[in-house]
Amino acid sequence: MVKAHLIAVGSELFLPGHEDSNSVFLRHRLFELGIPVTGVSVVGDDETALVRVLEAVPRGANVIILTGGLGPTEDDVTKKAVARCLHKSLRYDDKVQAQLEQFFASRKRKMPENNLRQALIPVGSRVLDNAVGTAPGILLEERGCLYFLLPGPPREMEPMFEAQVVPVLRQKYGARRIVQRHFRLTGIPESAADQIAAPIYRRYADVTTTILSKPGDIQLILTAADDAGGGAASLERLSGELARVLQEYIYSPDGEPLEAVVGRLLAERRMRLVAAESCTGGLLAKRITDVPGSSAYFLGSVVCYDNALKQELAGVPAEILDRHGAVSSPTASALAAGIRRRTVADLSVAITGIAGPGGATPDKPVGLVYIGLSYADKLAVKKFQFYGDRERIRFQATQMAMELLRRVLLARPVGD
Amino acid sequence: MVKAHLIAVGSELFLPGHEDSNSVFLRHRLFELGIPVTGVSVVGDDETALVRVLEAVPRGANVIILTGGLGPTEDDVTKKAVARCLHKSLRYDDKVQAQLEQFFASRKRKMPENNLRQALIPVGSRVLDNAVGTAPGILLEERGCLYFLLPGPPREMEPMFEAQVVPVLRQKYGARRIVQRHFRLTGIPESAADQIAAPIYRRYADVTTTILSKPGDIQLILTAADDAGGGAASLERLSGELARVLQEYIYSPDGEPLEAVVGRLLAERRMRLVAAESCTGGLLAKRITDVPGSSAYFLGSVVCYDNALKQELAGVPAEILDRHGAVSSPTASALAAGIRRRTVADLSVAITGIAGPGGATPDKPVGLVYIGLSYADKLAVKKFQFYGDRERIRFQATQMAMELLRRVLLARPVGD
Repeated sequence: MVKAHLIAVGSELFLPGHEDSNSVFLRHRLFELGIPVTGVSVVGDDETALVRVLEAVPRGANVIILTGGLGPTEDDVTKKAVARCLHKSLRYDDKVQAQLEQFFASRKRKMPENNLRQALIPVGSRVLDNAVGTAPGILLEERGCLYFLLPGPPREMEPMFEAQVVPVLRQKYGARRIVQRHFRLTGIPESAADQIAAPIYRRYADVTTTILSKPGDIQLILTAADDAGGGAASLERLSGELARVLQEYIYSPDGEPLEAVVGRLLAERRMRLVAAESCTGGLLAKRITDVPGSSAYFLGSVVCYDNALKQELAGVPAEILDRHGAVSSPTASALAAGIRRRTVADLSVAITGIAGPGGATPDKPVGLVYIGLSYADKLAVKKFQFYGDRERIRFQATQMAMELLRRVLLARPVGD
Repeated sequence: MVKAHLIAVGSELFLPGHEDSNSVFLRHRLFELGIPVTGVSVVGDDETALVRVLEAVPRGANVIILTGGLGPTEDDVTKKAVARCLHKSLRYDDKVQAQLEQFFASRKRKMPENNLRQALIPVGSRVLDNAVGTAPGILLEERGCLYFLLPGPPREMEPMFEAQVVPVLRQKYGARRIVQRHFRLTGIPESAADQIAAPIYRRYADVTTTILSKPGDIQLILTAADDAGGGAASLERLSGELARVLQEYIYSPDGEPLEAVVGRLLAERRMRLVAAESCTGGLLAKRITDVPGSSAYFLGSVVCYDNALKQELAGVPAEILDRHGAVSSPTASALAAGIRRRTVADLSVAITGIAGPGGATPDKPVGLVYIGLSYADKLAVKKFQFYGDRERIRFQATQMAMELLRRVLLARPVGD
């Protein structure tokens, strides 16, 4: 049986706040390819330590994937350690060197001397092109074991894995096929969702159900083998059952993020959106414009952190602010109406609330958020109480603002 | 110097959706205790594989913490593997057995036969009580190295770590402390920064230098032992040398993110900022308002994705847009001036550019960004060419906008 071992290299991986996200990605993708991971090691930028780790990889592993330590600096030791371990020498690769020079030339920069190290590769290895950065990956085969050396930054590693590692694995080990369904939900806590879903998915022994959740976003991932065992049919039935009981909360059946779902609905209807946001401070606009092509349906947002901007730029009457305060239903309403009136938008959304940690009053606690919507000839405001830290509250507020937009665009009730 | 190695045991850790959260917790707590973690291994419920991992722990490690594999079932192998590795035998501990019986009696349940395994402990070890579950922890000292065997569930492991591991570590290594310096830089590529810094930090063998970088942000972290060896003094000297040669690029000597540095400078000067942003789509405002209390100095931002909003809300004259286009120096200038004129802000910053992947023209490539600044009686525009995908270009644009603000606030030249 094919087994994989992952080695993440980099001293930064031991610092608080830094995670070895590459292993999470690789574990997940290798699972999908039917190649179980049987060990993960994290090691600093230390050649001797890395050699020890390489020597300790279980003998059963026939795919070893190293990430990180391919950069241009002195402490990038992956190639040296692997070469030492496999008794290979390193040589300069002309083609890689030419690519490096071209990379810098295209940016009109002189290549620093130390970048040349990136052209050093172990004798007998194959170069894996890096479509994104300067560090090429490396593939070495030794005694029936494939060694893949991939760059550390996920945005370089992930495309290289997909384009250059997966085909090799498929060719050599004929990876199994799996089927997946990736539901995304909002507006329901994880425990409530699981209470509804668990009695159903537990009846399907041939489907693996994984729940990933954070406040405001739940992902329900169903996986089954696509072979003669009937896993694919089970997955279809389970998906149908779950979709029925959780329908109200599912915004995507295929893993699409909410900003992309809302964007698609707007584009399909040729409708244009504008926003006014206070406590979320631009996060709503940022998320909506994370989607390439969003300029087709998103006019913009007034981030009116200060009350004067709520008046001057979003047209909120001063007496509403004076009488009800910035965090109130009338202000949310006036923001949504005001920003829509000032633009050619077909609908608008407004957020005002208290993200914390400061700013709470006895009757307006941290996490209190009002979301206003103006669409067709309607004006609606909904009040929410979110929990968590500043980041969580801001995320949940933008999530719920987009969920309300989704319901409006689907002509569903926006809720009680 | 005390160094720790973490080993997480459990085949479930390789399933998608399961994370080795114990290592994240332990890494963080050990860092706070001044004990750097130099390696992490994740291994399945496999005695032979665990023995190999134990044998490969770097010789420098003198604290080894294993989590998981202490349960009552056949596949809980941690104690057996550690005993085998250290040539110890296992014996039944009467006190643990009595506690187990009492645990089940208090729940009016008969103790399953296999729970007795949990009373097996390596000869010469000390039992660590489990306040929450049935699996006791174990402490073994062997050739100057402490082995802690802790249960896998975080709700059992974490209190055991705090109550029974921390006091032992403090007592044994209490005097050891580390000192750190955390520089953050922008406006220079990683390879160029390393070319300047490496010849200097390489001369300091007693200081560990780690470089973390992404386009637009470099972190340079220096760590040394704070003991009689003089590491702290070395770190001071190295810090001074690096600060001199990299001064132009260092925005923080203590790890503070750029948005917090700029926020502090604004607050100290009692100045208020407003922004107008196009291609960054709210990311600038989002980052500035990530900082709690930012309402004291940040009025808001007009996210004018659409040209009509640039005119109506940020006061850009139509003829400028017609003549020069949205991505141009005159537009950046008019945005900065316009948004400042419409508010009581003391200074303003504007960003317009092409984040990609679409939107480029022959003379305006993806990554072209203009940043405008209006302050005192001055109006400045700078042109940048960033590289990378949409997310990177947007991040670099906001990073450079804040760096320009920082220079203005420090009365430094904004650059050529």
